[in-house]
Amino acid sequence: MRRLIIASHSILAEGFKETLEFLTGMHNQISSLCAYVEEIDDIDEQIKELVDTTDEIIVLTDMAGGSVNQKFFTYISDRVHVIAGMNLPLAMSIALQLGNDNLDIGAIIAEAQQQIIYMNNQKSEERIEDE
Amino acid sequence: MRRLIIASHSILAEGFKETLEFLTGMHNQISSLCAYVEEIDDIDEQIKELVDTTDEIIVLTDMAGGSVNQKFFTYISDRVHVIAGMNLPLAMSIALQLGNDNLDIGAIIAEAQQQIIYMNNQKSEERIEDE
Repeated sequence: MRRLIIASHSILAEGFKETLEFLTGMHNQISSLCAYVEEIDDIDEQIKELVDTTDEIIVLTDMAGGSVNQKFFTYISDRVHVIAGMNLPLAMSIALQLGNDNLDIGAIIAEAQQQIIYMNNQKSEERIEDE
Repeated sequence: MRRLIIASHSILAEGFKETLEFLTGMHNQISSLCAYVEEIDDIDEQIKELVDTTDEIIVLTDMAGGSVNQKFFTYISDRVHVIAGMNLPLAMSIALQLGNDNLDIGAIIAEAQQQIIYMNNQKSEERIEDE
């Protein structure tokens, strides 16, 4: 089985999880880890528990170089995939393709990169077409 | 003055706002709009209030083509900038450069795109260097 873990500083991961569930209707296949939210907060222990499974895991994290990403980095293997700098198009694609035997993470990342868009440019194009 | 608005379906926008504030220590310069969270929820009215100002506004939204992004799209002007597909590196750069008179949104987007990273590739490189 393949599972999705979303991890971040503060509550960003929970925001991603709930918005993903809202948009896809998926439940129970996505876990979130919000680091540094509670005063006593053993993140290392939480990560160990999440990763200690025979499932294939895709971890989405907030930022390369951030401490949450670094903590998961040590667990990377053929079974544990870590992607940094997640956005919603990326999270949606991964969530909707969790059951895909031929998941192409590189292609999903390339597509998600192109989905960071300065919409003003599109508006300008629209204006030019209208003229 | 330049302000930052983060908008999404469900609570993703609030997640971005709190994580940004946690990481940058900034407060009061970032607004969030979480659509479809409450049963009675006049998003159009909320957007109108947020945009109806003389301030320059940068709006970060969850997804191009999504309804939240579409609603802001109609307000795009030289004063209102809309970026879709936000991730944390993008939000951090924009937040930290709100006061920059020479803000280069295109460059920030290009950099944020490169911050969606498949960390397993970096781990492999690390392994090869170790050998």
